[in-house]
Amino acid sequence: MRNLTVNGERLWASLMELARIGATAKGGVCRLAASDLDGEARRLFIRWCEEAGCTVSVDHIGNIFARRPGRNPDLPPVMTGSHLDTQPTGGRFDGAYGVLAGLELVRTLNDIGYETEAPVEIVAWTNEEGSRFSPAMVGSGAFTGVFALEAALATPDNTAPALTLGAELDRIGFAGPAPVGGRAVAAYFEAHIEQGPILEAAGLPIGIVTGAQGQRWYEITVTGQEAHAGPTPMPRRRDALVGAARMIDAVNKIGHAHAPFACATVGFVEVSPNSRNTIPGRVFLTVDFRHPEDAVLTMMDRELRKACAAAAATQSLEVEVKEFWYFPPTPFEPRLVGKVRAAAAAQGYPHQDIVSGAGHDAVYMARVAPTAMIFVPCVGGISHNEIEDAKPDDLTAGGNVLLNAVLDAADAQNRLGGC
Amino acid sequence: MRNLTVNGERLWASLMELARIGATAKGGVCRLAASDLDGEARRLFIRWCEEAGCTVSVDHIGNIFARRPGRNPDLPPVMTGSHLDTQPTGGRFDGAYGVLAGLELVRTLNDIGYETEAPVEIVAWTNEEGSRFSPAMVGSGAFTGVFALEAALATPDNTAPALTLGAELDRIGFAGPAPVGGRAVAAYFEAHIEQGPILEAAGLPIGIVTGAQGQRWYEITVTGQEAHAGPTPMPRRRDALVGAARMIDAVNKIGHAHAPFACATVGFVEVSPNSRNTIPGRVFLTVDFRHPEDAVLTMMDRELRKACAAAAATQSLEVEVKEFWYFPPTPFEPRLVGKVRAAAAAQGYPHQDIVSGAGHDAVYMARVAPTAMIFVPCVGGISHNEIEDAKPDDLTAGGNVLLNAVLDAADAQNRLGGC
Repeated sequence: MRNLTVNGERLWASLMELARIGATAKGGVCRLAASDLDGEARRLFIRWCEEAGCTVSVDHIGNIFARRPGRNPDLPPVMTGSHLDTQPTGGRFDGAYGVLAGLELVRTLNDIGYETEAPVEIVAWTNEEGSRFSPAMVGSGAFTGVFALEAALATPDNTAPALTLGAELDRIGFAGPAPVGGRAVAAYFEAHIEQGPILEAAGLPIGIVTGAQGQRWYEITVTGQEAHAGPTPMPRRRDALVGAARMIDAVNKIGHAHAPFACATVGFVEVSPNSRNTIPGRVFLTVDFRHPEDAVLTMMDRELRKACAAAAATQSLEVEVKEFWYFPPTPFEPRLVGKVRAAAAAQGYPHQDIVSGAGHDAVYMARVAPTAMIFVPCVGGISHNEIEDAKPDDLTAGGNVLLNAVLDAADAQNRLGGC
Repeated sequence: MRNLTVNGERLWASLMELARIGATAKGGVCRLAASDLDGEARRLFIRWCEEAGCTVSVDHIGNIFARRPGRNPDLPPVMTGSHLDTQPTGGRFDGAYGVLAGLELVRTLNDIGYETEAPVEIVAWTNEEGSRFSPAMVGSGAFTGVFALEAALATPDNTAPALTLGAELDRIGFAGPAPVGGRAVAAYFEAHIEQGPILEAAGLPIGIVTGAQGQRWYEITVTGQEAHAGPTPMPRRRDALVGAARMIDAVNKIGHAHAPFACATVGFVEVSPNSRNTIPGRVFLTVDFRHPEDAVLTMMDRELRKACAAAAATQSLEVEVKEFWYFPPTPFEPRLVGKVRAAAAAQGYPHQDIVSGAGHDAVYMARVAPTAMIFVPCVGGISHNEIEDAKPDDLTAGGNVLLNAVLDAADAQNRLGGC
């Protein structure tokens, strides 16, 4: 192990400069996928990469790859990165940290004139968040063949369905010429804030991510009967919102029932006609279930369907529960996870193994390449929030672990003929 | 009791002819207050009234009064009517029925050469619906001193604020010369479709309206902590939507607890940030409570505040419960209500007492004159909808009850020196 270190101050300064694009009054960032602000952030990133001597390419779905050549141009690259888009009320570190930790790694290699055996690529994936265009992680999903490209480009804006992801990427100048996927990647690393409270509570700067939780996402449509709120007696109502409220409560109880690993969330609700004096006739809501074990997710699925049917029955409602997205639990590549653990140990950083509760582009990349992730703590475990925060020392620690793990993989291809 | 009867076919034919003005493809009517179509309907109504020998006057806020003289011109008139404006996707009967039942009453008196003691006036109030210009019931509200005239005329169009109600009335030729209010009304009757399901379910053609429900409207803001739906363990969450869902459930239970008259509705919900994989940090919702007794509304208020505090506590949330609007219960004049009940009984119409859940011009008129209302069923209890419908026989029954109750009141002024 070389034990090289990144320039933590430069990394922090770049994070703060990027965070100005879409900065909110509360100190967060709103930079939705394929928006004008996303375009601005992408152009800044590309400028920085080109200044660092990288060759930049953009594929049809807007994924940006900045390549630093290696000694052996025939070797597939070691890739690292994350995403530049944010939640509507997001923070400065979710995604941006992984991309700029990759940039800092390249800048550090330039500073010391280090030539890797395999090329290193920094990647910024399109639309990881999925809040403007659902589902999430569309850029990495298209790259890894999870989503058909045409369908991914046709994804409509959730609130302005006439706009598609493809058209919006084109509008901001990021429907690039490079083909999507179809090429070898030697290894993929992603550094990310934990977005949960575990590392902070344990007082550890580094989490060795052994895999990702499975996820089941649902779309639920509850249909009753619109009616005037005044003259309609309670027993005659078919109030879709009352049914939906009982479903939301049930989702929460299902999460608690499968402690400590289950997560269960209703994040999105749309009430029709949403008028103060009209009984709601229709409610659309989403459910997000997560657990590291598939068997438990299956139990949660059964409990959800039962609870929705029961809640609908109390108000004579119709309910449609549609599984919208399923993501199996994803263990990462043990050898590559071992490189991350070894890098943390070599640098003397206290660390623990951890399972990712959130989806990450790494989870799709794990389908086509050996993959590992590095977590650093975030303050209060809070993310997807304008007050999301992280400590510069922890971000530097993650950058150092990433640097040494990437070097290990990029040079191992020479030594071992594979990472 | 004389037991005179109106000409139901003529009433129906006039309703259908009026419904052509603003007719929609789905069989409804769109005739917004002070629009060109409203002007056209007003001119048709005035022509019909003049053909029936009435003297028509229009006041500054466009209320139209068509007077049929009585034997004693010094007596204040018995007034009946409703409104000609509709919701944007309204029906053929809401409002129009009350106005044309008044016209049919006058035509019937003409047919048989009946001279009442007191004059009878048919009224068409301006902007009852409040959908183009808010608030609702502005014409009757100005007539009864609830709204200052200048402020009422200055009401802006909800979607084109440069246009005011006063200017639009002037444009369509209905900013009339008569002063607004300030004169005695012996009694006010209003016939209206029920806009709810009670009479139809009971199989009754006539509802004797004993008063209008009181209303308390609230705005509730629930504040928790936005966080990522994946990595945030259930016990650490401050999920504003889970708290709000329990409040929505509680509102419904409060409504049921005060059966049979209480209505309790959450009609509007706004979730922030409303993203599928973010724990909601804030929910805004509205509550609409209705009950004919103030004491019960006060109990419901107390229960609401207690339930909101309890629901907030389960998720460590903050909650603000703000009363947004209060409308006291309006009992109608028992003697006048008795005349309606007696008229229904004399004609052999099955009937029941009923409380109006919706607002009507009669609710403001009750402040300045003895007031009563007659409800007839509407199909499926549906109103504020293009498919709003009513049966000709029920409309005729309501017309007959109105006729005899009005005659009772108009002649009682001679016999009893007051109705």
